[in-house]
Amino acid sequence: MIARFAILLFMLTSASSYAATDYEALKDKYYADHPGKGKYADLWEPIPIQQYWNPVTFYEPPDTVEGEFTAEQCVDCHKGTTPGWVHAWEDSTHANLDHIRELHHDDPRFYKKAMLEEIETGLQQRGVLKEGQELATVGCIDCHGGVGKTSLVHDKELRLPDRAACGECHVQEFAEAEDEKKQKWPQGQWPDGHPSHAMDWKANVETAIWAGMSQREVAQGCDMCHYQQNKCDGCHTRHTFSAAEARKPEACATCHNGVDHNEFEAYMLSKHGVVYETMGKDNWNFEVQLKDHLTEGNYTAPTCATCHFEYKGEYSHNLVRKVRWGFNPTPEIADNLDHPWFEERKQAWVASCAQCHSQRFAKAWLDTADKGTIQGLEVEQEAKQIVQKLYDDGLMVGQKTNRPAPPAPAEDAPGDFYGLFWAKGNNPSFTGRTHAEMWEHDLIKHYKGLFHVNPGGFTYSEGWARLMRRYTEIQDRNTQIREFAELKEKVEELSK
Amino acid sequence: MIARFAILLFMLTSASSYAATDYEALKDKYYADHPGKGKYADLWEPIPIQQYWNPVTFYEPPDTVEGEFTAEQCVDCHKGTTPGWVHAWEDSTHANLDHIRELHHDDPRFYKKAMLEEIETGLQQRGVLKEGQELATVGCIDCHGGVGKTSLVHDKELRLPDRAACGECHVQEFAEAEDEKKQKWPQGQWPDGHPSHAMDWKANVETAIWAGMSQREVAQGCDMCHYQQNKCDGCHTRHTFSAAEARKPEACATCHNGVDHNEFEAYMLSKHGVVYETMGKDNWNFEVQLKDHLTEGNYTAPTCATCHFEYKGEYSHNLVRKVRWGFNPTPEIADNLDHPWFEERKQAWVASCAQCHSQRFAKAWLDTADKGTIQGLEVEQEAKQIVQKLYDDGLMVGQKTNRPAPPAPAEDAPGDFYGLFWAKGNNPSFTGRTHAEMWEHDLIKHYKGLFHVNPGGFTYSEGWARLMRRYTEIQDRNTQIREFAELKEKVEELSK
Amino acid sequence: MIARFAILLFMLTSASSYAATDYEALKDKYYADHPGKGKYADLWEPIPIQQYWNPVTFYEPPDTVEGEFTAEQCVDCHKGTTPGWVHAWEDSTHANLDHIRELHHDDPRFYKKAMLEEIETGLQQRGVLKEGQELATVGCIDCHGGVGKTSLVHDKELRLPDRAACGECHVQEFAEAEDEKKQKWPQGQWPDGHPSHAMDWKANVETAIWAGMSQREVAQGCDMCHYQQNKCDGCHTRHTFSAAEARKPEACATCHNGVDHNEFEAYMLSKHGVVYETMGKDNWNFEVQLKDHLTEGNYTAPTCATCHFEYKGEYSHNLVRKVRWGFNPTPEIADNLDHPWFEERKQAWVASCAQCHSQRFAKAWLDTADKGTIQGLEVEQEAKQIVQKLYDDGLMVGQKTNRPAPPAPAEDAPGDFYGLFWAKGNNPSFTGRTHAEMWEHDLIKHYKGLFHVNPGGFTYSEGWARLMRRYTEIQDRNTQIREFAELKEKVEELSK
Repeated sequence: MIARFAILLFMLTSASSYAATDYEALKDKYYADHPGKGKYADLWEPIPIQQYWNPVTFYEPPDTVEGEFTAEQCVDCHKGTTPGWVHAWEDSTHANLDHIRELHHDDPRFYKKAMLEEIETGLQQRGVLKEGQELATVGCIDCHGGVGKTSLVHDKELRLPDRAACGECHVQEFAEAEDEKKQKWPQGQWPDGHPSHAMDWKANVETAIWAGMSQREVAQGCDMCHYQQNKCDGCHTRHTFSAAEARKPEACATCHNGVDHNEFEAYMLSKHGVVYETMGKDNWNFEVQLKDHLTEGNYTAPTCATCHFEYKGEYSHNLVRKVRWGFNPTPEIADNLDHPWFEERKQAWVASCAQCHSQRFAKAWLDTADKGTIQGLEVEQEAKQIVQKLYDDGLMVGQKTNRPAPPAPAEDAPGDFYGLFWAKGNNPSFTGRTHAEMWEHDLIKHYKGLFHVNPGGFTYSEGWARLMRRYTEIQDRNTQIREFAELKEKVEELSK
Repeated sequence: MIARFAILLFMLTSASSYAATDYEALKDKYYADHPGKGKYADLWEPIPIQQYWNPVTFYEPPDTVEGEFTAEQCVDCHKGTTPGWVHAWEDSTHANLDHIRELHHDDPRFYKKAMLEEIETGLQQRGVLKEGQELATVGCIDCHGGVGKTSLVHDKELRLPDRAACGECHVQEFAEAEDEKKQKWPQGQWPDGHPSHAMDWKANVETAIWAGMSQREVAQGCDMCHYQQNKCDGCHTRHTFSAAEARKPEACATCHNGVDHNEFEAYMLSKHGVVYETMGKDNWNFEVQLKDHLTEGNYTAPTCATCHFEYKGEYSHNLVRKVRWGFNPTPEIADNLDHPWFEERKQAWVASCAQCHSQRFAKAWLDTADKGTIQGLEVEQEAKQIVQKLYDDGLMVGQKTNRPAPPAPAEDAPGDFYGLFWAKGNNPSFTGRTHAEMWEHDLIKHYKGLFHVNPGGFTYSEGWARLMRRYTEIQDRNTQIREFAELKEKVEELSK
Repeated sequence: MIARFAILLFMLTSASSYAATDYEALKDKYYADHPGKGKYADLWEPIPIQQYWNPVTFYEPPDTVEGEFTAEQCVDCHKGTTPGWVHAWEDSTHANLDHIRELHHDDPRFYKKAMLEEIETGLQQRGVLKEGQELATVGCIDCHGGVGKTSLVHDKELRLPDRAACGECHVQEFAEAEDEKKQKWPQGQWPDGHPSHAMDWKANVETAIWAGMSQREVAQGCDMCHYQQNKCDGCHTRHTFSAAEARKPEACATCHNGVDHNEFEAYMLSKHGVVYETMGKDNWNFEVQLKDHLTEGNYTAPTCATCHFEYKGEYSHNLVRKVRWGFNPTPEIADNLDHPWFEERKQAWVASCAQCHSQRFAKAWLDTADKGTIQGLEVEQEAKQIVQKLYDDGLMVGQKTNRPAPPAPAEDAPGDFYGLFWAKGNNPSFTGRTHAEMWEHDLIKHYKGLFHVNPGGFTYSEGWARLMRRYTEIQDRNTQIREFAELKEKVEELSK
């Protein structure tokens, strides 16, 4: 009984500062910070699907259903028209709050009982609920209209829940997630708040080639991950909104895979991922809170969430507190790793690893990963010089005859990011594109392979071996291009 | 009780037309349609392993075991020689029909009871079983000799079950699967019945390079997926023959993965696949029929089967009823998407998606996917012109000096399919091969990524970004080849 | 009761020869065989992380904690500092020996009871335990100090367990694993004992480019798999040390994946892997011994372990008893497959497959796989000639102007292994690198795809189709390089 009281007290204490008073301020700041269409707004128009990736800016209620409805009427009608989401909701915590209230303290989800009480207290303090009033259920209207509303006009008031909508109840999580915006790099390696989930939509719409390319249906594919700034169902899939789901590594997979951020593959092939696959799926309990993963949860290896939500023993939706190399290794980071900002974060990582490894092991590994990353960076930088020189000498294939400018706001440059998504005539040249793949694909995979402890990821399969391959290709082409130019010049002289 | 009666009645009604009378007609048509060795039969001879991929045409009983045996004798002997398949069968539904008969109506497999009764009714009507006789078990001889036979001569009568053998009992499923052959494209984009599982063996043996290549052991690798026309254990692995197995996405993985049909990867990395991984493996019931997946099955996302077996709310083994872009995007399809044939199928897809999504969302997504596919197609078509022009100008690398003809019936052409599986000297040229990879790998992955809602599949990892890469490479090579030819000409003039 | 006694008797009989007397000899030989830094020892120095990959040679106790401690004190302290490993151990068999002693004979882990008694008998015979004494638990000190020790001096005596440390109790498994060193190839295709887990560290440190490259942090990535010679936790992850874990296919994934040994991917996409995914994860029991996998374990498909631990019906930690093509296909193997050494191993494979397939099927498949492998080898060998000729003619791109020597002990050669991990200037040339990828990546994947029965692995995705691609690229470059050289010569003549 005392333990239970203590838990409640802890929960209320740790989170109530947000719950009681700050929601409105958080919400206002959220909307104030939101970039909408961003700084290149004039260059593109949203296509219909984009209202679902950024409802904050683009969503309009459908005009196909008119009239005012209660939550019960929503369910009655949608059971027939879209049964899938109704079923998912019916099995969710949102639809079964009484079940949460009745949980025994041995249940791994018992913590949700306290969380629910805290949410209700917050709503009461803000006047959304009356003094002492409990939430009956979290139904359609609460999320699609506003918490506590009893009906909505379907063609006028229906909204797609954004971060602030979920934040109405989940103030603590909303606040944590928005905290990512406070990130400041010591030498301005990245703009404030970047890279982060909290500003990923801004990062997206303010990327030159994304805004400039005419293939809007391809471009919106980037939105399909870069929408975490807009809504929460990237990790907690609607309409189940499960916490357990988001704790599993696969929850991160749709966005964190592939040629330039293969974290999922790196993890799954690491010993950590293998233990998750062989032991975790049968024996670990994903219903427990992250802080209890090693004890009540029976985890014997880390997951994405246990490492990236953690900072100095505390777990939160601010995932950038231990970020060091960020999205991609650059000289600006490599040259400053001894700055206290980086050093302190490395110490925080040592502490994370030391939950299961000795500090000496953790330190040895992180040093190895830093140095290995720098070794990859050196190769990429050498290749960059070669490519830049070819461009400066006007020798890129077709450079003088058939190199159209990329669409504004992108600007012509060798090995640039735009060349991964746009091509016309001899822009980019294949040599430039190859360099872009070095810094934007292989160097990143090299670094991710190292830090996720996947040996094949930075030796023979991905990373290093691929950097070697592209370096070789660039050297080969450079030699051939220059030999050809020399021969051509000689022939031209002979022709005079 | 009434509910149960109603279910039985529904089952019998919906399927009995096939069960009672049509098996013989179905079977006769199945064999009449079967291509055997196909139109290039003279060019190749089967190797021993191929009898297992196409038992219809090639299988001969082994001569190592002589004599006549009962099913009990089969089991007794094979328990020692090949225990694996005996164990699998012993745990299967086939070996435990009484268990099916005793299922409680709350059991998710209860539908099998009605299915069994329907099968027995059909067998009785066709005289395979006597009036009122039940199947005792489905044992070795029923499948390897003929339903109801009590013994077989091992070295003379043993057969490997083909589609028609499974169809002896499973008439409904046999009929559904064979229905795929009725597919007709509105402007002849594909030959009748193609592409489909029901004609995949024909597609295989009538592919020029498959028939022409001398490496028969490599060529037969294609058979290992292209055998669905021949037998049913591609999805229902022998000797378990589980329906639940085939309902899981991984069941499709052996064939639907890789460079030119990465449906499995696209699904698994989509939000749909992630929900299957994080929630489905623990919580969904794969024993329920597809039609009940959202209700009794507790699915919260679709699987391969729930989308591709469904058409206007009905589930069947005819998987081509909603096919639109088919195996690969072509101008012939892109230019005709407003034809009612395509439009109606798009509507059918909207209805499928609307089980969980709003119709507006579904429509917006399908429009996005269509347009995105066409954007990929445009890039590929532009590259095709460049490659064709190089070939027409005789400028492909080695074209005039070392380009042997491909083996008949394949015919020389740039960027052709044969170049993915055969190479000699400078045929194919690397530029041609690169174009083949555009249309046969990357454009297909682009389209599959779009329609399986995997963002990385049509943006930065696969699809679009890879099309950009190859376009860049083709432009680069085209420029270099032409500059070299020009220089060579100049030198030749100087040498005169 | 009799059955139980018989089982115990069998266990004791089959293994006691090792348990009783041979541990000391095994251990002495293990250390005598250990290469330490290997033959290139003078060329490199270990970095800190390497003490964990090769504790035999490099590990030193940390100096951060001084004093002598009991196992109870270890646990008390490490529960706070590194709770993860303490929790893993607390749930392990090692920490719960009494639980093993109380297992009912119906429990799939019942065999562990006999194994424990056998281990205790062995320890008693060697005087580590007293006559009749049981192991209380296997705790920190037993592994990190020596079995039966009651305390250790943390900064002086702490060791990281190597193979011999685990072998103190697990003598049988230690002996089996070390038996791999006895492998002898009939025509010296590989050095004695190679390739094997038992000599993988030696293979690693005696690889020229590994020893020669200056990027030690990248190089040590190879150690992260090549450490099985040094310790056992590559398969049985510390501190759970589960047998069930190691029986699952994913346990092999960290090392057996990727561009030059994609066994994991090949298996997972094969029908075998698909059955594991769809049926195995729910229905198979991985707690049973491998020998019982088809019966008590309910397996309906093989796993990595069931095939590779088995030889003529016996299961052991010697995994090389059926090796035929080894790490990579070479003419030396291809030309000698009719030698009895290879033939007998093929027969052993037929017997393995015949647990579930007919012998005829098994033979037909293995013949197909052999021939298909040779077809791939032929293409690679043809390309090799082209590349060698370019090198011999001095025509590799940059060969005469900018081809620095690789770091010693590596020696310059075209298409060599070093070129996958080291590059400078025009060494390797891209053509040479492409050939290296043929023999070291694609031919291996081709062969692995064939033998793991993954059709896409040796047809359109990996293997054959990729060999065709690289062959095409090499032919293209060869033609272009020679045409350019010819033109250059002509121009030089004109310039005279």
